Amino acid sequence: MKHFFLAISFLIAFVSCNNKKQTSQTSETLDYQKDSTTIKQLFNTALTQGKSYQWLDYLSNEIGGRLSGSPEAQLAVEWGEKLMNDLDFDNVWLQPLMVPHWIRGEKEEAFFTINNQNYNVPICALGGSIATPKNGVTGEVIEVHSLEEAENLGEKLRGKIIFFNRPFDDTLIHTFKAYGGCVDQRGSGARVVGKYGVLGVIVRSMTHSIDDFPHTGAMSYRDIPENEKVPTAAISTKAANLLSEKLKENPTLKFFFKQHCETLPDAPSYNVIGEIKGSEFPNKYITVGGHLDSWDLGDGAHDDGAGIVQSIEVLRLLKLNNIKPKHTIRVVLFMNEENGLRGGKKYAEEAKKNNEIHVAALESDSGGFTPRGFTFDANSKNIDLFMSWKPLFAPYGLHDIVKGHGGADIGPLKSETISLFGYRPDSQRYFDYHHASTDTFDKVNKRELELGAASMASLVYLIDTYLN
Amino acid sequence: MKHFFLAISFLIAFVSCNNKKQTSQTSETLDYQKDSTTIKQLFNTALTQGKSYQWLDYLSNEIGGRLSGSPEAQLAVEWGEKLMNDLDFDNVWLQPLMVPHWIRGEKEEAFFTINNQNYNVPICALGGSIATPKNGVTGEVIEVHSLEEAENLGEKLRGKIIFFNRPFDDTLIHTFKAYGGCVDQRGSGARVVGKYGVLGVIVRSMTHSIDDFPHTGAMSYRDIPENEKVPTAAISTKAANLLSEKLKENPTLKFFFKQHCETLPDAPSYNVIGEIKGSEFPNKYITVGGHLDSWDLGDGAHDDGAGIVQSIEVLRLLKLNNIKPKHTIRVVLFMNEENGLRGGKKYAEEAKKNNEIHVAALESDSGGFTPRGFTFDANSKNIDLFMSWKPLFAPYGLHDIVKGHGGADIGPLKSETISLFGYRPDSQRYFDYHHASTDTFDKVNKRELELGAASMASLVYLIDTYLN
Repeated sequence: MKHFFLAISFLIAFVSCNNKKQTSQTSETLDYQKDSTTIKQLFNTALTQGKSYQWLDYLSNEIGGRLSGSPEAQLAVEWGEKLMNDLDFDNVWLQPLMVPHWIRGEKEEAFFTINNQNYNVPICALGGSIATPKNGVTGEVIEVHSLEEAENLGEKLRGKIIFFNRPFDDTLIHTFKAYGGCVDQRGSGARVVGKYGVLGVIVRSMTHSIDDFPHTGAMSYRDIPENEKVPTAAISTKAANLLSEKLKENPTLKFFFKQHCETLPDAPSYNVIGEIKGSEFPNKYITVGGHLDSWDLGDGAHDDGAGIVQSIEVLRLLKLNNIKPKHTIRVVLFMNEENGLRGGKKYAEEAKKNNEIHVAALESDSGGFTPRGFTFDANSKNIDLFMSWKPLFAPYGLHDIVKGHGGADIGPLKSETISLFGYRPDSQRYFDYHHASTDTFDKVNKRELELGAASMASLVYLIDTYLN
Repeated sequence: MKHFFLAISFLIAFVSCNNKKQTSQTSETLDYQKDSTTIKQLFNTALTQGKSYQWLDYLSNEIGGRLSGSPEAQLAVEWGEKLMNDLDFDNVWLQPLMVPHWIRGEKEEAFFTINNQNYNVPICALGGSIATPKNGVTGEVIEVHSLEEAENLGEKLRGKIIFFNRPFDDTLIHTFKAYGGCVDQRGSGARVVGKYGVLGVIVRSMTHSIDDFPHTGAMSYRDIPENEKVPTAAISTKAANLLSEKLKENPTLKFFFKQHCETLPDAPSYNVIGEIKGSEFPNKYITVGGHLDSWDLGDGAHDDGAGIVQSIEVLRLLKLNNIKPKHTIRVVLFMNEENGLRGGKKYAEEAKKNNEIHVAALESDSGGFTPRGFTFDANSKNIDLFMSWKPLFAPYGLHDIVKGHGGADIGPLKSETISLFGYRPDSQRYFDYHHASTDTFDKVNKRELELGAASMASLVYLIDTYLN
């Protein structure tokens, strides 16, 4: 143990020496004592006087699912604006933009028939998909496990319903990697097979969980001709397993599905923005945000109501603890992350137009679960500074301070100088609920949500203190 | 960054040098490559071929709550024995013991009356409590926040119902510390005030969550005279807050409660034990376990069905991966942790009687949540060995390898030579469900449970490899 402590001492000595070097590029020498005291205060107030859970209750249960262009999305905009005004932020405003307006219409129906027996299966249209003909489509099914496998089948796909059924890799500990390994089927499946004259596309839901809930999400036809566009739906994992099994029994079984979704003309909407003015660098910005829109099946509590209320709570916690930031701290409730990213793009476009200097941006869009850490996508000269913050976060269970993706909404802000951060809660439960009717407020734990808000406020405090 | 890596290299060099020193007291030099490969296999099989979730479904939903002495506890014993025989463990047997037999009886009732208005409040008798008189008790309420405050009131308590209402400290990140800071009210409240001729005791439920669910748990009169024993119940946190608020309005409001619980004569029961014989040290034991009994309100999925199925899964995962342990690996399903610890005591007593050499014991009794680490209570000469395992667990989210309590059931095994370990999952959600009707199977996430089993199997593998 003695040797271990000796080694730790070396480590601390090096980090410490390293931190001194930081003074040339940052505004302050690290002061662990002061920082750990401030961070403790932020956690204490989040856990004892936090508001994020109460706000999320309202957003989830009173407003509900808020797909871009929907009346609920507009209610969410008004709620966010009013809340930030009530919290007395220095400036609160709406940033107008146009969003895609896709609607699901009547509930989808699907079943397959084998040996004269019908099996009803839970499906939901994928966002961006066209409807089936009014009476639905019926056809034989070809099961594939990748875009490549489908492409290779080529003309054999003609006249069939293509069933993309590659499951999540359960051995990946970080579940977003499993999602990343499958989601091309949902996003591009229909586009890839459209040219072969298929009847439709059914995609296995993007989840580890074997259950009866289909998970929606965006798909895109990109620029394929109108006549190659086919209706596309997600099927629950349990039904996908059943269908796959029954296809082995009878490869010519018939599958029927019907959906009524539609893409309307783009609709007006808004990013909702609030800020606390910086005392020293009022024209330099640290942005924190999540996305205000959600899918329509659940109430979007984890995706991304959690990120919304945590981001607003960050500014409230700074105010409540009388922390006067040097930079202007902005919270942005981005609109339309799910099916267009128009909000993220608009915010970056306006920032560029106004020559705003963005020092850093932090996004929370991985659910409101217990904290695990942060990813950063940053100018490499700052990386050792960020790593030196690890001991400050460790007491709160945040050990994963690692390079990685910041977030979709803040992505368009990326430049040589900005540091992008993603808040990373535990990922095990996320895809149980993601884009499904099960993404509801009751799946959120109050303390986990609050710990996330405090973690984010602590990171913003450190960025504000040490970055220029 | 360069300096940081340099520091890390120093750290690794020291740990590595340290590990070499270990060879004098352990059987093997650490082989990170081999160990990390084996651990990856254990996680892969747990996540793709795991059985723990399916077993827990049965134990929770088919057997249900299994309080010591109940028919369900007996069913659980039979289930555990059969399961381990079906898994073809080398030896499986029942270890007989006698357990306390407390029964709740008919559902409890409680309300308070203020300004002629009745407020029904959810309560549940605490385990070990006596019943109220058949028609219940009614009295004025004195609210206190500690045993000491109650003691200081002394004679002022006479003829009253004592309401212990100290809440959890929400600022404590590890929730078991908050529990530890309050649970004396539940365990000892009635004993302390009994001598003042009180009518009964009501204790705020042991949870962070503000909700309508009362949480039961053990209380003890110890050796106070019969006539000082008073009925004791837990009240939901929401009702506790309401009662406290209304007491401020009217300190003489009347509280009524009625409960029918009873302590029957001790009943026969069993620890259920299975083992895989060690190839090199068959007479040296590594024990892994949880407790088979649970409270009666929920189905005991987290407390401690999770620990039970994870412990059995540890042995199955070792077999499945053709790991032939050097020591005999035992799984023990301890009976009666909740209200007596008779199983833990019996197991240690028999081990001593049979001169069994126990190298280590590992307990899982903190819920089936996402893994965070292990605590160890060990001979100090082994501590640097355990710390050297940290890098092997980090990829799976286990960062907290720290000194601490092993577990209640394995506690009686404690000696100079044994190393006791506690599996530590994330603690944020645990007390939402602990001892309440909400501790049910649907609160358990399959992957989180499986990750826990794999973590435990990995630890047992390392102990078996490196400890003698």
